[in-house]
Amino acid sequence: MDVVFVLYPGMTALDLVGPYEVLAPQPEVTARFAAATPDPVRCDAGLVLAPTTTFDEVDRADVLVVPGSGRWGEVLDADVVAPWLRRVHPTATWTTSVCSGSTLLASAGILDGRPATTHWAVRDELAALGAEVRTDRVVVDGSVITAAGVSAGIDMALTLVGLLWGDDRARFTQLLLEYDPRPPHRAGSPETAPPALVERGRHLMRRR
Amino acid sequence: MDVVFVLYPGMTALDLVGPYEVLAPQPEVTARFAAATPDPVRCDAGLVLAPTTTFDEVDRADVLVVPGSGRWGEVLDADVVAPWLRRVHPTATWTTSVCSGSTLLASAGILDGRPATTHWAVRDELAALGAEVRTDRVVVDGSVITAAGVSAGIDMALTLVGLLWGDDRARFTQLLLEYDPRPPHRAGSPETAPPALVERGRHLMRRR
Repeated sequence: MDVVFVLYPGMTALDLVGPYEVLAPQPEVTARFAAATPDPVRCDAGLVLAPTTTFDEVDRADVLVVPGSGRWGEVLDADVVAPWLRRVHPTATWTTSVCSGSTLLASAGILDGRPATTHWAVRDELAALGAEVRTDRVVVDGSVITAAGVSAGIDMALTLVGLLWGDDRARFTQLLLEYDPRPPHRAGSPETAPPALVERGRHLMRRR
Repeated sequence: MDVVFVLYPGMTALDLVGPYEVLAPQPEVTARFAAATPDPVRCDAGLVLAPTTTFDEVDRADVLVVPGSGRWGEVLDADVVAPWLRRVHPTATWTTSVCSGSTLLASAGILDGRPATTHWAVRDELAALGAEVRTDRVVVDGSVITAAGVSAGIDMALTLVGLLWGDDRARFTQLLLEYDPRPPHRAGSPETAPPALVERGRHLMRRR
């Protein structure tokens, strides 16, 4: 099974590495890391990832994983990822996004009239791009799976493992990642965080 | 604040990228990614990370983050990371590990007689290396913070953010990462997973 992880400058590393750590170790999976060029990709907080292939070389995939970015508006404006997604998505059994990666799917026309989720601070913008926005952590619709912000990619990928290979495989993967989360606070969603923090987060994630 | 993330071949990417995504975006933080050589580092499931500095160039740090590996025994045998940790740890305000990264701290003598946690499947081995092993998800002891397996690095780093800058900063970070986890199963610890899966996981993580 050919899983292609999409890399681009300014991406949020955890959006990609959460699903990667769940999917790439599965024995059936061949993982590829595709970017527009072979150059190393600098993520939005400084980590540098190296592609193993380029968009030109990838004509098909069984699974696509598209991460988001704190500067998602600039990524849309660059218009590099969405044209490639438009071409490869029809070949994929599953096309997935994490966080504001949903805006790239929407920009490629993949979310037109489709239920989808995204980072909580980007919901209105995703709706403006044509999706039927849900507030769920993971939304499965046809061949498309979208996840909420950053850390939700782990839940998304475990859901996908369950769909591909069954619940026992998902449980085993969860156990190996010791995914028994203990968030120190009840502040991980706009419904539970103090309103002043929600406002600040919305400002930080606005389109630029 | 100088945060040094340790890279080495065979490391588990999420062990590092969880804490990175929590710590690196903080305005006070300068993030560096240090490896033995400037060469790109291949993680244990295929992702390639690029160092921004080398161990030779790092004499001190405010915070050290040490990831684990699925092949942690081979990493101990290579004896590259622990000698450097022995040198830099005394300069650090906080030395932290995720997953089997704890065995590198132990190998550097940092965990002698100290309470510490690790990936659930490596507890006996960490005890044999001199630590007083706990089953907690995060253990803070003096200037050392250890985390349980893989995904526990997120909880560890949020705990550290609270210690460094207060609970409100930790809440804001948690909100930005939308860290409101919804694991699809109750299987993230050896206490909750089916015994057959625990046995298989223990076999997979044994020292090689």
